[in-house]
Parts: sequence; structure tokens; C-alpha cells
Amino acid sequence: MRLATLDDGRPDGALVVVSHDGARWLATPGLTLLSALDDWQRAEPELLRRAAALEAGAGGRLDLARLRAPLPRSWQWLDGSAFGTHGQLMQIAFGLPPVETDRPLMYQGLSDRFFGPADPVPFADPAHGIDFEGEFGVIVDHVPMGTSAAEALKHVKLVVQINDWSLRTIAPIEMKTGFGWIQAKPPCSMAPFAVTPKALGEAWQDGRVCLDLVIDMNGRRFGKASGAAMDFGFHDLIAHAALTRDLVAGTVIGSGTVSNANYAEVGSSCISEVRAIEIIRDGGPSTPFMAYGDTVRMEGRNPAGWAPFGTIHQGVVPA
Amino acid sequence: MRLATLDDGRPDGALVVVSHDGARWLATPGLTLLSALDDWQRAEPELLRRAAALEAGAGGRLDLARLRAPLPRSWQWLDGSAFGTHGQLMQIAFGLPPVETDRPLMYQGLSDRFFGPADPVPFADPAHGIDFEGEFGVIVDHVPMGTSAAEALKHVKLVVQINDWSLRTIAPIEMKTGFGWIQAKPPCSMAPFAVTPKALGEAWQDGRVCLDLVIDMNGRRFGKASGAAMDFGFHDLIAHAALTRDLVAGTVIGSGTVSNANYAEVGSSCISEVRAIEIIRDGGPSTPFMAYGDTVRMEGRNPAGWAPFGTIHQGVVPA
Repeated sequence: MRLATLDDGRPDGALVVVSHDGARWLATPGLTLLSALDDWQRAEPELLRRAAALEAGAGGRLDLARLRAPLPRSWQWLDGSAFGTHGQLMQIAFGLPPVETDRPLMYQGLSDRFFGPADPVPFADPAHGIDFEGEFGVIVDHVPMGTSAAEALKHVKLVVQINDWSLRTIAPIEMKTGFGWIQAKPPCSMAPFAVTPKALGEAWQDGRVCLDLVIDMNGRRFGKASGAAMDFGFHDLIAHAALTRDLVAGTVIGSGTVSNANYAEVGSSCISEVRAIEIIRDGGPSTPFMAYGDTVRMEGRNPAGWAPFGTIHQGVVPA
Repeated sequence: MRLATLDDGRPDGALVVVSHDGARWLATPGLTLLSALDDWQRAEPELLRRAAALEAGAGGRLDLARLRAPLPRSWQWLDGSAFGTHGQLMQIAFGLPPVETDRPLMYQGLSDRFFGPADPVPFADPAHGIDFEGEFGVIVDHVPMGTSAAEALKHVKLVVQINDWSLRTIAPIEMKTGFGWIQAKPPCSMAPFAVTPKALGEAWQDGRVCLDLVIDMNGRRFGKASGAAMDFGFHDLIAHAALTRDLVAGTVIGSGTVSNANYAEVGSSCISEVRAIEIIRDGGPSTPFMAYGDTVRMEGRNPAGWAPFGTIHQGVVPA
């Protein structure tokens, strides 16, 4: 099952069910994705009935331009950093010593707004070092405090694709304080479709999204790294987050920037990593951060070209 | 004007206006505090009319036992650390080098749940080092990105008193990663009344709450530090947070633990600070963290004993 949110002028939008091919949609009985997640056991059968009707040919033609983020806002966004290669390269990019820990890395970020897949994204100042971060994420129902990694996977109701916008000249300054990021992490964007783990089929294995995250910047290929390479699976990240808190229904947990050890072949999912690679190779970075007017396109794909989350394709604009 | 939230079984509760003496209340026309903040210009006149009626003798007797946190949940909780003395002592407590920065310190914490003033607070494990942190906070309406400190004060609609529960054996581990705190920061609690800056009178000066935060643990005086000693005012904290993001209406901004340079006289607002003072004085800490059954009481007071936010008085229980 694939879900999306239509812009109806309200803060949470209107939840709709989308056909497997992404071409058609059916309305839900007054649900938002956040309200559906609040009582998933009650909502799911209704949504599955519509998904079945869609596969039987029902539904209207989907207008992608009307879609917002599938979850336009939530109570909690916890972003991990589960790709070790990304972590190592970022410390080089930031000029900071390696983070020495055997625990998952995670921060809490802004969740009151997720930009839609085609929204222009406003920034205050290009001197802040505007960068994208291509990620996958999961959305959970209520997760009780103390839930183990073994029990966590059953709380993953939906999987999403995220662009975690980041400001790189501020990030290391904030990181050095130990308090995490406020200014360096403006709102994220989401690809149009939230997908059930079941509908991902073989692309969902061991709590990992086993798809290539194909990224183009200004129409040129930037990266094609696999989401399968997470050091910790999403179930580990959920258990980490839930050690001392209940996770509210609708919590989004991010993988961190998708990154592979063979980055020389597959490329990267953010500019800062490329700059770190340039620092290692050339002694200094040469790829600039984004400027107003630049665009980024992101699509998680399997080898056959199937892109279950749809496409993020958006530009950077002045605030 | 003083506002509170009655438990009506719904997630956001029912917003009520409370008389200046805290004895009586009047219902609002279907508002929650979060919905009122969404359109404060429309809500405020209705609320002020009720406040005036209360001072004229209207309203029913307030049952404190029915009160939840004035804002039971919000989209965003940004906690500063604006008392320099606290910051210095905490680095000693954590065994970490001093944080060298001239910027406000701030992290984003869990906002999907604020405990009420008398709620028992469940913890998974006393070995995590259960500690309270007495703070003041402000609640803002929508703050546009780029708002200056000079413009920020007008966005402060309400002032609150907060207990920022903290887990001290986890905190330094998370802080060393640079990502801020997830496990070390379970939900906070709030005192019963949210108060307009105007109603605070002389207790609201230069974006600071000029009251003593009187704290007792297990019935014994623990601290009585003044909120006036913030290195940065709340307007500075708001401008810091809004540099690269719009602040959603209902955002709560915290002062960080109230702490004064003359701590030997006034005491502290968290256990960890006392342990740092013991480390300096005795070479090691002797005050234990909280155990199941321990209680903490917090009340911001002026010299005449006026406590506009009411009282947090709650105990630690097993999850």
C-alpha cells in the first residue's frame, strides 16, 4: 500500500491511497496520515480496502502537483546517522575528530513542517553552506518505552524517502557544543509516497531499504548509493530512541545520509561528503554548496527502475 | 492573564482562564492552548474578556487535581542553556572540557508530551541517573525566520515554569557525539499556569523571569536561584532559534537550568550541579541522583511569596 497527502488547505492535508503504479488515487474517510497513525489498527483495514479497489481499477487520475509531503508535520523527527562511511567523511568535512561510539548516532530535529517533493525550499543565506542529504526513513505507531530491537520492526507502519536539508558552515560550530543542531537543520522534505514495508517487498530487508538512492544535482548524476549498507537497521534505531521515552505515533526515524564504502564508484548523497573526499584526495574541497536556483532530484530505485517513494525534485530559493 | 489546561480526556485538553489568585476558572469557547496560539490575535480578546469576568467575581472553584500541563504537547521544544554558571558546573559534572562558544546553547527535545504538575513521572532505570532541572520557559506564536532579538519579545505570548527531567549517566555519552541528547532527555513537566508577560509585571524584565525558583527535594530545601541571571534573554534565544527556521506557533523555548554564581548561598536547581560543586570542594560527588519514591517541588516566587506559575510537585516512579 502506498499513501500520499493531498493539499486541501489544512495543516495536515488529506490522506489518500495511491495505486501501485502511482497513477490513481482514492480519498480516505476524513483521515490525515497523523490521525491514521494514532489508531492504525482501525485505519489500516479501511486503507487496505481502498488499495484493493485501486488495483481493481477504481480511483481518479493522480495529479502529482497537488501532493504535499505524505506527513506534512509530526510530533517528532529523530534522525539517525547509521551509515558509517558518511559519519567518517563528515568529521573530515567538519575538521573534527572522529566520533568514537558503538551506539547509534541520533539527534532530534524540526518536525513541525516537512516540505513537499516539489516545493521550492527557502533559505536565509547561501553563505550558510546549503546542502542536501538523501535519506530513507520510517514512520512508527506508538512505541512503548523499552521496546527491544527485536520487537521494533512491527511498529514500522510506513517507509519514506527524505531530503534532510543542512547548513554546513553552521553544523560544526553547533556540533562542537555537544547540544546537536538547531540552526544547521532547517525543515526536511519528503518524497510523495509513504509505502508499507510489505509493499516494498524485497526492497525491505533486515530493517533496511535495499534500494539505490539516485541523486542528480542540476540535472547531473551526483550519487547512487544503496540504502542496504546501514550499520544499524531501523529496528535498532527505534529501540535506541525508545530506551527512555515512549515514541509518539507518527514519529519519523531517519537513516542518516545514505553512504557506501565504495563512494568512488557510486558517488554520494550530500555535497559535504564529496568535499571531504576532495579534502582527502586533493588537500582541499572544490565542489561548492548550493546556490539559489540550484535543484536536486532524489529517487530510491531498484535495478528495474521501480521507484516506490516517487521523486523529490526541488530548488533552492531566497527566503 | 493566567491560562491552564483541564483534563477532558483529549490529547490537548481544554484551555481555561484562571483568576489572578488562582482560585477560580472559566471555560473557553472550545479552545486548546495550541489552537489559541495558532491564531492568538483572534483568541486573545476572548480570553481577556474571561479574565476580566473572573476578576469581577465570575467562575467556578478551580480543582488543581484536574490540571494538566498548560501545554500538554507541542510541535517544538527548544531548550537553551542560558545560565553560564550551570554550563560551567555541568561540564565538571560530566568530566568534559568547557564548551567554548559566545553563542546561546540550545538543543531540540521531546515535545509530544509535557507531564502535568503533579503527575508521577515514570523512569525505566534509576541507574540512568535521574535528575530534575528547574527552568523557566516562554511560548511563542509564529515567529518568522530571521526575526531579530529586538523584534522577538513581542512573540512571547506566555511564560511557563518547567522541570526538564534528565538522565545523567547517559548525558555525557550523548554529548560527546555532538548530536545532542535523545536518551538523556525524557519528557519535561510544566507548572500548572501559563502566564502572560504583562501579568508577570515586574517579574518580567529584559526577557528574563525575575523570580526565585524555590526547589525542595523530599521536603528539604534544595535551591532558590534567581531567573534574572540569564546570560542571554529569551529574546536572544528566540532570535537564535529563528535564524534559519520559522518557529511554529506553540514553540516552547527554555532557559536551561536556573543557576546563579552565588550557588553556595542560593543552592542549585538540579542535582548534577550539586555533585559538580562537591567534586570541586571534596574531590568527588556525594549527593545521589533520585530514586523511586523521591519527590521534587518547584515554585517560582517573588519576595512576597507570589507564585504566578503555581507549583510542580511530583514523584519518581518505575516505568
